[in-house]
Amino acid sequence: MQFTAQQLAFMLNGTVEGDPSVAVNQLAKIEEGQPGSLTFLANPKYEQYLYTTGASVVIVNNDQVLAEPVKATLIRVENAYSAITILLEKYNTLKQDKSGIEQPSFIHPSAKIGENVYIGAFAYIGPNVTIGNNSKIYPQVFIADDVTIGEDVTLFPGVKVYFDCKIGNNVIIHSGTIIGSDGFGFAPAGDGTYSKISQIGNVLIEDNVEIGSNTTVDRATMGSTIIRKGVKLDNLIQIAHNVEIMANTVIAAQTGVSGSAKIGENCIIGGQAGIVGHISIAKGSQIQAKSGISKSIVDEGKKWAGAPAVSYSDNMRSQVVINRLPALEKKINELENIIKSLSR
Amino acid sequence: MQFTAQQLAFMLNGTVEGDPSVAVNQLAKIEEGQPGSLTFLANPKYEQYLYTTGASVVIVNNDQVLAEPVKATLIRVENAYSAITILLEKYNTLKQDKSGIEQPSFIHPSAKIGENVYIGAFAYIGPNVTIGNNSKIYPQVFIADDVTIGEDVTLFPGVKVYFDCKIGNNVIIHSGTIIGSDGFGFAPAGDGTYSKISQIGNVLIEDNVEIGSNTTVDRATMGSTIIRKGVKLDNLIQIAHNVEIMANTVIAAQTGVSGSAKIGENCIIGGQAGIVGHISIAKGSQIQAKSGISKSIVDEGKKWAGAPAVSYSDNMRSQVVINRLPALEKKINELENIIKSLSR
Amino acid sequence: MQFTAQQLAFMLNGTVEGDPSVAVNQLAKIEEGQPGSLTFLANPKYEQYLYTTGASVVIVNNDQVLAEPVKATLIRVENAYSAITILLEKYNTLKQDKSGIEQPSFIHPSAKIGENVYIGAFAYIGPNVTIGNNSKIYPQVFIADDVTIGEDVTLFPGVKVYFDCKIGNNVIIHSGTIIGSDGFGFAPAGDGTYSKISQIGNVLIEDNVEIGSNTTVDRATMGSTIIRKGVKLDNLIQIAHNVEIMANTVIAAQTGVSGSAKIGENCIIGGQAGIVGHISIAKGSQIQAKSGISKSIVDEGKKWAGAPAVSYSDNMRSQVVINRLPALEKKINELENIIKSLSR
Repeated sequence: MQFTAQQLAFMLNGTVEGDPSVAVNQLAKIEEGQPGSLTFLANPKYEQYLYTTGASVVIVNNDQVLAEPVKATLIRVENAYSAITILLEKYNTLKQDKSGIEQPSFIHPSAKIGENVYIGAFAYIGPNVTIGNNSKIYPQVFIADDVTIGEDVTLFPGVKVYFDCKIGNNVIIHSGTIIGSDGFGFAPAGDGTYSKISQIGNVLIEDNVEIGSNTTVDRATMGSTIIRKGVKLDNLIQIAHNVEIMANTVIAAQTGVSGSAKIGENCIIGGQAGIVGHISIAKGSQIQAKSGISKSIVDEGKKWAGAPAVSYSDNMRSQVVINRLPALEKKINELENIIKSLSR
Repeated sequence: MQFTAQQLAFMLNGTVEGDPSVAVNQLAKIEEGQPGSLTFLANPKYEQYLYTTGASVVIVNNDQVLAEPVKATLIRVENAYSAITILLEKYNTLKQDKSGIEQPSFIHPSAKIGENVYIGAFAYIGPNVTIGNNSKIYPQVFIADDVTIGEDVTLFPGVKVYFDCKIGNNVIIHSGTIIGSDGFGFAPAGDGTYSKISQIGNVLIEDNVEIGSNTTVDRATMGSTIIRKGVKLDNLIQIAHNVEIMANTVIAAQTGVSGSAKIGENCIIGGQAGIVGHISIAKGSQIQAKSGISKSIVDEGKKWAGAPAVSYSDNMRSQVVINRLPALEKKINELENIIKSLSR
Repeated sequence: MQFTAQQLAFMLNGTVEGDPSVAVNQLAKIEEGQPGSLTFLANPKYEQYLYTTGASVVIVNNDQVLAEPVKATLIRVENAYSAITILLEKYNTLKQDKSGIEQPSFIHPSAKIGENVYIGAFAYIGPNVTIGNNSKIYPQVFIADDVTIGEDVTLFPGVKVYFDCKIGNNVIIHSGTIIGSDGFGFAPAGDGTYSKISQIGNVLIEDNVEIGSNTTVDRATMGSTIIRKGVKLDNLIQIAHNVEIMANTVIAAQTGVSGSAKIGENCIIGGQAGIVGHISIAKGSQIQAKSGISKSIVDEGKKWAGAPAVSYSDNMRSQVVINRLPALEKKINELENIIKSLSR
């Protein structure tokens, strides 16, 4: 897609300074702008790049003062940052403006498909599935029997949703993520082998959740594994059976949450962290990357680090000493020798 | 699916106490039961909930004494826990009662498909593939040339099996798991670049193995990567080339096993653990979550923890001191000052 | 596929010693050779197995002296190791000799497909996609709008490539890997919820890159997430938005690289390592498995370990003392008692 400075100014209710006919077809950071690209200056820290950027068009605030001559065409707007956000959303919407039902796809006759739904080729919609209005089911998605999907949901290519799961409105799930595979439940059979425990619960995902790619959310043994509204999960995360994650908690990539753990609201959990099963994490907890949480966290709004985790500040203090340990041991041995000579 | 208390009692050989016509369409924990749900009481610890549950039907033991009035309809059976297990299995079987060959699917004319096999839409069965009786190949599964799959196997949607791999009987593999991708083998070419080492072995999965979702099992460079009978692997696990995991070992999510490691029988390995290449783990070893095993484990049946791992009890003892390190360092400095004053 | 010793000798320009009509249909390690298998002896360390192997055919160097009688048929060649490498490549090429366009597949009319391209069944090629000559797009791959793919590229089954991404020549990507899913970017909305930041950049993968299975490479917020030429990524790796990995760096399984991190050329990074966002790693750095890199590494070509990471040798020294900590603490307490008695 290509736009002229004139067209952009019209879309953004701005005014052009320079050549209104210059055209751009991509966005760039101001310090990396090339001819044909559009960029913006919102943070005064980057003003220097305004005079050197190779971008063809720069969006700036109405009150931007020019300390040097500018090569690029400027578009002056009320708020450059908001303007670029609006453009990004428009661009994204254009890029993902899919609709209709592509062939071949598999839609069971008993499925109820809302209005203005996109179903990509090779998608599979099983019996008794419900899909709300304006949802996008990309190619190669699998939706099993009796699944309910809300409105304005996007399931990117290759997402798999097992039977009985429920997904709310405005949910985004990225490629390769698996919702509702069996929880990891086996009972020792007494002879060294294990018997599978049937996993007949489901997964319940509330509104406004976003889940990254290749993440796994297991179904509950009984009842539901629950992802509450507004939760954001990154890529390659493991959510075990019967976990419940409360509203607006954010979890970074490659973290694992073990069975039946409950994570409070508005927590922030770093990457590669691990949370053991059957514990509770108080709301507002902040957990550093690579931490191992082995006990319930009761105090709200605290920072934690280490494996097993302690308070962030305690962990920092211990880490500092760990790096001095060889020197510390040497000192102890020297003191021991002195003491021995003193006590002789 | 909906069942009346009367129907359930008939299926379970039990007797109804209360309204036999009340209907249920889902299972719930006794403390979370809602009207329309079925639950059970097997553990006396939860007896209190029998009198308060909102569930419509509760399965109880024949000898259950009622200390208070019960609102729900009861079904009395010999053993409530066994009864619920039977129901779960029946339910699961119903939910996964797929058969026949859906269209469009791709089945190479040279493939040999057993009796009563399910092949979902968009599944791909390559040349010379063999699939045993009663196996279920869900939609969007890929099975490459010369793969052999046993009887009563379930490959959930999106599983990919590369050429030449062999899967035994009663194996379950969940969505998104990749069997037989190339091992990570590269030889330095001398100029900073790497040359690929062809990975021409395969993956051999024995009977009764279950593998979770989005796990990866790489093919051997030569010979086989082997998962022995009864092994249970969770989600997002990495099994590198030429690994061998002996019978009935259980591994939790996000653990990684490096190339050519051999893991003994009946080991239990926690989540996010790492095992370096070319080592052996003795049978019956128990490895804590997040451990890093950097050397072979020779003693059988021991517990290990930490990265690099030491015995579980040693690790616990060191962890306790680590949290006291800042105080310990302070004490050492104080002692040093005293000693200096003494030796003056 | 089956070959006689005579046929193999012809292919390898070697000479047969023993029965030229004996046939083999698989490769094996010399110590594991069974009748019907081919093996080789390149490393004198394994010479003992030459006399005991059950393999039917062994490839040896022309100058191999026989200390004992050999049961297998020998093929003498100039260099046994090179010979086996040539055979492996030939075998692999045969196994992956796919071409043509299988049906049903979805190819948008505006896509430009090169010569001798393989497109498997259920693959999806979106609008304005370009695919270079001799590339192989396996079944169930998804390629979104405006993606460019070079020559001699292999995308194994189930790979997903989001819109606008660019993949160079001679790239191999294994099953289940996701290229170009949204970066994990959210802005706090002030009321506890988060607003999505549109991710409108792309992913740029240069020539000769290989990526394992179920790895995720997120698109840039703006600009590109870049994987430079010759990089090798293993399975289940997370590459966040705006990361740049320079040429010929190798990363083992389950490692995560956070947003905007820059990793230099020819680094070697072990499995389950984590690299925080917005830092730089100097070229030639070697990072141990499970390390956590929390600060930029400026010195080139050094080894690092631990979480948070320090130099490899410092980490080793501290680890040794950590395992002695309980004893050390005991000693300190004893010294304290002596000092107290001395100072009385």
